[in-house]
Amino acid sequence: MKDVLHKLTLLGEAICVQLENGCLPFIEIPSRTTSNIVYDEMRGRFVLSGARIKRTTSNVKHLRVFTQTVWMAYMAKRLIEEGKSTTLRDLYYMAESYGVKFKDQQESDSIIADVEALLGVSREQLRIFPEERATIYGDLTIRYNVHGYERTILNLTASPDGVAIGPALAAADFQDCGAEKVIMVESGGMFTRLIEEKAHEKFKAVLIHTAGQAPRLARHFAYRLKRELGLPVYIFTDGDPWGAHIAMVIISGSANAAHVDSLVIPDAKWIGILPTDIEDYRLPFEKFNEKDWKRLHDLMADPRYQSPFWRNQLKKFEEEGKKSEQQALSIYGLSYVTEKYLPEKLI
Amino acid sequence: MKDVLHKLTLLGEAICVQLENGCLPFIEIPSRTTSNIVYDEMRGRFVLSGARIKRTTSNVKHLRVFTQTVWMAYMAKRLIEEGKSTTLRDLYYMAESYGVKFKDQQESDSIIADVEALLGVSREQLRIFPEERATIYGDLTIRYNVHGYERTILNLTASPDGVAIGPALAAADFQDCGAEKVIMVESGGMFTRLIEEKAHEKFKAVLIHTAGQAPRLARHFAYRLKRELGLPVYIFTDGDPWGAHIAMVIISGSANAAHVDSLVIPDAKWIGILPTDIEDYRLPFEKFNEKDWKRLHDLMADPRYQSPFWRNQLKKFEEEGKKSEQQALSIYGLSYVTEKYLPEKLI
Repeated sequence: MKDVLHKLTLLGEAICVQLENGCLPFIEIPSRTTSNIVYDEMRGRFVLSGARIKRTTSNVKHLRVFTQTVWMAYMAKRLIEEGKSTTLRDLYYMAESYGVKFKDQQESDSIIADVEALLGVSREQLRIFPEERATIYGDLTIRYNVHGYERTILNLTASPDGVAIGPALAAADFQDCGAEKVIMVESGGMFTRLIEEKAHEKFKAVLIHTAGQAPRLARHFAYRLKRELGLPVYIFTDGDPWGAHIAMVIISGSANAAHVDSLVIPDAKWIGILPTDIEDYRLPFEKFNEKDWKRLHDLMADPRYQSPFWRNQLKKFEEEGKKSEQQALSIYGLSYVTEKYLPEKLI
Repeated sequence: MKDVLHKLTLLGEAICVQLENGCLPFIEIPSRTTSNIVYDEMRGRFVLSGARIKRTTSNVKHLRVFTQTVWMAYMAKRLIEEGKSTTLRDLYYMAESYGVKFKDQQESDSIIADVEALLGVSREQLRIFPEERATIYGDLTIRYNVHGYERTILNLTASPDGVAIGPALAAADFQDCGAEKVIMVESGGMFTRLIEEKAHEKFKAVLIHTAGQAPRLARHFAYRLKRELGLPVYIFTDGDPWGAHIAMVIISGSANAAHVDSLVIPDAKWIGILPTDIEDYRLPFEKFNEKDWKRLHDLMADPRYQSPFWRNQLKKFEEEGKKSEQQALSIYGLSYVTEKYLPEKLI
């Protein structure tokens, strides 16, 4: 938090210095245009290349966007200092009362991404949070550090339904951890199943329910568990192109967040349902529909899917045209997933 | 829980008695066909009328559905006895391993609704849970009663991001409650805002984040807070036909759950954003698009919207064609909602 405040202060000071020296102030921002987003094969993720854009108050055409950018940085600083959080939507509305105009939310969202790229921080560090919430359960004790909760300690097995990963939990300090791995789970049914079957004890795992595509806060929290506590991250989804892509976004990030580092877990592992599992475990399946085929072909053209592992998985999908859900494992009874499937996957 | 087990046992016994007496067993189930679902104006909700259907093993055409129904009741009994939970999807898959065939999930879902109607219980009481999770925050202390958590007590201010309302929390006992009302909130941004602005203290409120249409578990939990603790329920949504309908489903239930009592809170109150609020609070708005208009006209034809209050609200929407989000209140600053808007709404 102090890092971010420091960076914001430096930005403000740089502008003041320019003004005091009689210069018309400007800022330089890493460019986020498509031509500057490249796929870094070595690192297995999208990154920004070197191009930068200059926004200078000496050009009247830049004045509006310069003001928007500086206002956004100012608001972020205030939010951090006041210990408040906002959403992309809030900021779009709030701008109006400050006399700063955005023509639509897309424009204000884009300025927020500029500030992220400019400072090298994520918008969550600027106290701007998404609406989506993932849920977490496992033997991890955290200490909150938000206003009014400074000394509150919580073990994340406190509620058998899980605790929401919101702004406070995402920024909490790690106090103690009995878990040795993280399992991110696509469906709520499977998340509840794993808790009931005591997967957290059996596999010493922290369980995170992503509810479809993992929200940014969940990805960031898993990133912290990996980086700060060294826990390996496993991803357990439905066996279809959509499930594969839930895993891929956790592993490699997305093009439009190429400028954010803390959302990428390159060595996270997709443990299924793999297309080969459908055969190996003789799971009930459905045939691909038109949307599944389209999605599969999109993924096949995606630079993130060109490693041998992923090419094989997608090829298998293409050969068979079959998909299967996590809950299809219930065909062998409710405990099959923890007694047979996961033990074979987590070795 | 014991009630439900008792009802399931009685059902089994009734079938055994028929067999022992040399009768071909049958069951009679309240009919859930459209013609038997009527809107009860007095009670402000859909209910089932008197028609019943008979499923008898003396008719070979009924054998399949009779077996499916009895199997489903059997599974529910096992789930309760073993303290496990499932989803609609799980049961569809599990049936196969018992040699009970459903042609698709729609068929198995329909049988579950039959068992609900037959026993007069909700499927959640049968340990069959939806995937969607709402989140809760407030001064309410609960005691879990699920397996492994028998004595666990949790105050629902334990995490400033909220706790998920899953199967365990929904069935927990109320131990202590400092709150005097319930506010159900549509958007995650507003839910977090209200916690940060200490709305739970200021208004002595339990806050429930519905994330769009309230999941059945959230409706059931709010119903319990109303019934067991006498807390009035307020619903705070976006100001558009979709928000209105979030409120309506909480208040009046839905036609396809006409046979379930514990999901209806007739005296819950929609506190906005009302269409009149857009003018009164001079909120930024957008014009209705085609989908909004279609939705509005659907609602106008819906029997649940024929009371003076609701007719006026919908009429106002129709006259103005304007919609506004909860977060539009941020135009007056982040604290406006707790300092001005809610105090005027909660009196």
